[in-house]
Amino acid sequence: MLIVPEREVAGLMTREAAFTAVEQVFAAMANGNAYNFPVVREAIGHEDALYGFKGGFDRTGLALGLKAGGYWPNNLEKRGMINHQSTVFLFDPDTGKARAMVGGNLLTALRTAAASSVSIRHLAREECKVIGMVGAGHQATFQLRAALEQRAFEKVIGWNMHPEMLPNIEKVAAEAGLPFEAVELDGLRAADVIISITSSFDAILTADHVAPGTHIACMGTDTKGKQEVSPELLSKATVFTDEVAQSVSIGEAQHAVALGLIREADISQLGAVIDGTHPGRQSDEEITLFDGTGVGLQDLAVAAAVVDLAVEKGIAIEVDF
Amino acid sequence: MLIVPEREVAGLMTREAAFTAVEQVFAAMANGNAYNFPVVREAIGHEDALYGFKGGFDRTGLALGLKAGGYWPNNLEKRGMINHQSTVFLFDPDTGKARAMVGGNLLTALRTAAASSVSIRHLAREECKVIGMVGAGHQATFQLRAALEQRAFEKVIGWNMHPEMLPNIEKVAAEAGLPFEAVELDGLRAADVIISITSSFDAILTADHVAPGTHIACMGTDTKGKQEVSPELLSKATVFTDEVAQSVSIGEAQHAVALGLIREADISQLGAVIDGTHPGRQSDEEITLFDGTGVGLQDLAVAAAVVDLAVEKGIAIEVDF
Repeated sequence: MLIVPEREVAGLMTREAAFTAVEQVFAAMANGNAYNFPVVREAIGHEDALYGFKGGFDRTGLALGLKAGGYWPNNLEKRGMINHQSTVFLFDPDTGKARAMVGGNLLTALRTAAASSVSIRHLAREECKVIGMVGAGHQATFQLRAALEQRAFEKVIGWNMHPEMLPNIEKVAAEAGLPFEAVELDGLRAADVIISITSSFDAILTADHVAPGTHIACMGTDTKGKQEVSPELLSKATVFTDEVAQSVSIGEAQHAVALGLIREADISQLGAVIDGTHPGRQSDEEITLFDGTGVGLQDLAVAAAVVDLAVEKGIAIEVDF
Repeated sequence: MLIVPEREVAGLMTREAAFTAVEQVFAAMANGNAYNFPVVREAIGHEDALYGFKGGFDRTGLALGLKAGGYWPNNLEKRGMINHQSTVFLFDPDTGKARAMVGGNLLTALRTAAASSVSIRHLAREECKVIGMVGAGHQATFQLRAALEQRAFEKVIGWNMHPEMLPNIEKVAAEAGLPFEAVELDGLRAADVIISITSSFDAILTADHVAPGTHIACMGTDTKGKQEVSPELLSKATVFTDEVAQSVSIGEAQHAVALGLIREADISQLGAVIDGTHPGRQSDEEITLFDGTGVGLQDLAVAAAVVDLAVEKGIAIEVDF
């Protein structure tokens, strides 16, 4: 039994490793070699916490297991701990024995960033100069940092409900040597790629805010009721997702599907583009939209990668279990 | 983070501790202080394995977490390992952090034995002389050993599809200084308590095989399609269970309910008897039947108990996670 504590993950995991892990598992999902189990998510009636399990099995990568954990909204204020707490458990698919336990907090941030980054690699136009951010919280910094590696961006623009948070992403732009500009929502028409990463329950981005040819990665909507873009914008775009079933039920597409503006069959798996069975973007005028809902297989993939790195570097704790 | 490896569980856990843990959590389920999450169970398409998660939260005992694992049918033949493999993970309900990891194989056997044992304590007549076993596999030995502690039994009788396995339970009887007799099914009319613990998909025990006043614990049926007793016998009995939703869907009551012989509302939680809100057995002629389907909360309860014992004895492995 191998253990990789949360504190070791930052020193081991790279954005490249997360990117590769997520790209491979999206492809495996699309070609039927990997699937996610039903998600369990419970309001446990204690500390206002949401707790649950996201599991899956990837036959290609032989990753079997789950991420367990959730959201403890009082952690930060009461205990100085982060509110999202999760742990990934990997099992040996040949025997059913527990194989590894890995701190899942930073990994969750990295795999979510990797997902939008994979979507940019495979769906954005080659020539992209401006990236626009909708949202400027902690997770936005991860999304932006990973996205900047995918195209030769020359400028970062951003909008946030609370403008005083924009320096979070301005700092990431500065690290990459790029200028940053705070914009109103219609200023996002200057962007070639837009990432939205908010906790919004109302559409922020509408069709008026988006220029033809833009790639949009919607990364914030993972629950019934949440919403980042207008159903009209979504219905104008070619829609891709990590998992179609989640996209139409808890993802960004839930609203356009409920309104009858698009059908489930109109949504494609990003993995099919990676896999070469879907052509992906077909013109420079097309708006592509990736609905990133977050699946357990992403967690297993990055956890398996970090276990390999920990073993390689002699950092994994081995327990005779 | 505390770790209790499988190999330590036998030396730490007692039948008494398992009994108390299961009795308490059944009561907590009945009074609304503990509940099980939806069960995830998947045929993963690798090694013919069934894998999944049984989770729950007990507000009284503050046990939060899951048992993960399943059934790997080739383990024994291919690798000399047992086919049922499981691990229990406990989380701190105040923070969402992983608190403990415990080998779940022996614990599963002990918690299943404790469940029928708790049902005997609360539902069998006080004066019981003969206990009858239907099934004589490995798990049957656990059920019998725990059951013998509940009443002053004077004799063990048993039936098994393959009579050559009966020495398994004869040996347990001998350990307790009791005579054993192999019987035909109608010989079970001599029993005051019957435990069925098989993997049968057809009714074995019918109303003809059971005398008035008997308590029956049906412990084998945990899947759609499995069946140990006839629907007629079940409809003659006063039916109790660990969890009503499981009883009517994957438990022994699934068949009688499907046939319209009993309704879901006719089934009571054993916990309500423990709790004193249900009178339990009401006459010496009544047949009581406990439909033990197996719930995640039982696993969490015994795992929490073994962690406490391991800490007390300085055996728990502590990892800075």
